[in-house]
Amino acid sequence: RINRERLWRDLMELKEIGGYDDEATGLRGVRRLALTDEDARARRLVVSWMRQAGLKVRVDRIGNVYGERAGEEPGLPCMLMGSHIDTVATGGAFDGTLGVLGGIEVIRTLNEAGVRTRRPIEIGFFTEEEGVRFGTDMLGSAVTAGRLTLEYAHNLTDAGGATVKDELVRIGFDGDAPEIRPVPHAYIECHIEQGPILATAGVDIGIVTGVQSISWQRLTLRGEAAHAGTTPIESRADAGLAAAEVIVEIRRMCDSGEYGQLRGTVGDLRLLPGQTNVIPSEATLTVDLRNPDDTLMTAAEKHLAEHVDALSDRHRVTAAWERMARTAVIPFHEGIQDVIAETADALGLPYVRAMSGAGHDAQEIAAICPAAMVFVAGENGGISHTPREYSSPSACGNGIDVLANAILRLAGE
Amino acid sequence: RINRERLWRDLMELKEIGGYDDEATGLRGVRRLALTDEDARARRLVVSWMRQAGLKVRVDRIGNVYGERAGEEPGLPCMLMGSHIDTVATGGAFDGTLGVLGGIEVIRTLNEAGVRTRRPIEIGFFTEEEGVRFGTDMLGSAVTAGRLTLEYAHNLTDAGGATVKDELVRIGFDGDAPEIRPVPHAYIECHIEQGPILATAGVDIGIVTGVQSISWQRLTLRGEAAHAGTTPIESRADAGLAAAEVIVEIRRMCDSGEYGQLRGTVGDLRLLPGQTNVIPSEATLTVDLRNPDDTLMTAAEKHLAEHVDALSDRHRVTAAWERMARTAVIPFHEGIQDVIAETADALGLPYVRAMSGAGHDAQEIAAICPAAMVFVAGENGGISHTPREYSSPSACGNGIDVLANAILRLAGE
Ligand SMILES: NC(=O)NCCC(=O)O
Ligand SMILES: NC(=O)NCCC(=O)O
Repeated sequence: RINRERLWRDLMELKEIGGYDDEATGLRGVRRLALTDEDARARRLVVSWMRQAGLKVRVDRIGNVYGERAGEEPGLPCMLMGSHIDTVATGGAFDGTLGVLGGIEVIRTLNEAGVRTRRPIEIGFFTEEEGVRFGTDMLGSAVTAGRLTLEYAHNLTDAGGATVKDELVRIGFDGDAPEIRPVPHAYIECHIEQGPILATAGVDIGIVTGVQSISWQRLTLRGEAAHAGTTPIESRADAGLAAAEVIVEIRRMCDSGEYGQLRGTVGDLRLLPGQTNVIPSEATLTVDLRNPDDTLMTAAEKHLAEHVDALSDRHRVTAAWERMARTAVIPFHEGIQDVIAETADALGLPYVRAMSGAGHDAQEIAAICPAAMVFVAGENGGISHTPREYSSPSACGNGIDVLANAILRLAGE
Repeated sequence: RINRERLWRDLMELKEIGGYDDEATGLRGVRRLALTDEDARARRLVVSWMRQAGLKVRVDRIGNVYGERAGEEPGLPCMLMGSHIDTVATGGAFDGTLGVLGGIEVIRTLNEAGVRTRRPIEIGFFTEEEGVRFGTDMLGSAVTAGRLTLEYAHNLTDAGGATVKDELVRIGFDGDAPEIRPVPHAYIECHIEQGPILATAGVDIGIVTGVQSISWQRLTLRGEAAHAGTTPIESRADAGLAAAEVIVEIRRMCDSGEYGQLRGTVGDLRLLPGQTNVIPSEATLTVDLRNPDDTLMTAAEKHLAEHVDALSDRHRVTAAWERMARTAVIPFHEGIQDVIAETADALGLPYVRAMSGAGHDAQEIAAICPAAMVFVAGENGGISHTPREYSSPSACGNGIDVLANAILRLAGE
């Protein structure tokens, strides 16, 4: 079993890199967007912890970082653990970091117990998992898995125009290890659930059956600026109103049940010129759709596109869609799920099986080797992407105990 | 008759102070927000033109600028002309400036013709007419008319926290003339219509019967940030969705006819934290309502407040309203309207009478003396608050000819 106090101390220490006082909640949150100065400081701290645990560290060309513990039989594919350490702008201490710091804690525990494994064990943390800075989530792991090219990823820009490549160079994490890594034996990621399923079931542990489909698009509606007081209602081309109707329709689609378990969110919306007495000439919004069913996801995207066409005509605005990210439903490896289940059973920890609502690096790595995930329950209904995100020391400890024992077993295969 | 070429040259010269290339329209626009460096440069240029025309210039404590031409009988209340030279961030060359530069052109014409008048004639330009920087429109004229106190106006802040007082001092227009000025004999403002009524009627000239009621409020909706992928639809507190429903309801209110000729606009909306995969925790929007009927305006505000209460409950968000500006319907002086009508008749210029959709300094000055306005038609349906705003040299010339002759007559009374 791992050292829970040590794990907790590390989680709390890392939390302060990018830590800020959140006005909305009155809580201490974390703002550590990928490849920012905060991310760089966090990366250096985590690398130092990896080295202290005896790991050999390498950085690849998309900035993914791996720490390796040698196995007894050199040349065998490794057992890989991992996750990410970047956060959203209003994040908590657990999203991603639990899997990375938990992985280091697993290594320390093996070291202290003098346990050697047949296979090497590696920990990876992947670049821009959140996708909020450069617009594409699971970016580093998607490049490693070959779903996105290195060139595509390098050229993505943030809101200020900085590219991924420039930022990698700037923070000193433009590594030279090939982004297409040696194929692992298997991959397990421990992550907080970020949702209510485990809490509702009253268990600390979830075995993740897969990840639902994710669709991210940016929609720009262009109308015409005009005076708010003098312009007749019927002659307006109000881009803000059109955007509002899009938001309302997305919610209607979710409520209707026509698209199954569809979840839709408009997280960002900007109006130009953005003045009290000027009708908006331009509205740019992000559209985040999730669906556990690929067919229903495609149908939802199609309906929304048609609906936007119709309302654009009605409001005399033009609509331009930009694809940010799109993944299909990804099922996890049943054999690895079963190993995790048997481990939890052996530890006497009850669990449920559940599909993930959030995207995870594991869904990318699943394309190159057997992969699965351990979920850890969160409090407050599992709320995440807010400083209210919280998983207890015992829930975190239980999750990493499961991780440790599953890794130990698979590294011995 | 005034010198149309000279007036046009001045309009085009002033346009370049704050001139910018507008991406949305591909046109040259004007961005000269009140009390910015651009406004300061424009003020200095206009003051120099006033002085060249022989006017004695004074600046009052809210930054309103007056230029005075002596009358034959000292001590008589003056005939006042005026308007404003600040613009919105996506403005054109005519909104406000026509009345100010036209007024200077009237003075030059009188000077050249060697005409003296019984009463003094003054031109005024008023601070922050647009209201887009500090949130309250007709600010300078409202202080002069006693509707708002100097202290209230001085303490208003822009989005960056700068106060009106600080900015007045910074740009050197914190004058010492009393803000409550000597009562004029009468006030006439020439302004572009900024709407389609004159163009539809096929005339260059409008005689303004009054200004409709204006209501500006800022609404802040607060919900809870949470993960877009994992948070069930039914447990969300999505401030962005609530804001979208407010926008859609405002449009429904306008379309329904329940509130007469209500016009409603949400020109600005900001979401926090503004990230693709985070449900918005906060939405702040401006609500601009206009109504030619005071009773229906009050009913519209009441309905909207109740509707927002209901939808806030439904979405588990809180709603906080902040009053930015509010004016009742202001009728203009019928005697002055008739003088303008007789002047237009004498010049052979057809006109229509119409209520103003936009707010104007004249509606404030109307509280202290008889006041009315001359409207000048615009092209492209009279569109304004966009670089597409355009009134032809002949329409502008006709409007200022009417102004000149009406002023001449009233200054002789
Ligand atoms: N786990 C997590 O928050 N991933 C970010 C990608 C997503 O929005 O699902
Ligand atoms: N004329 C004009 O644009 N005034 C600004 C105040 C308003 O929004 O009506």
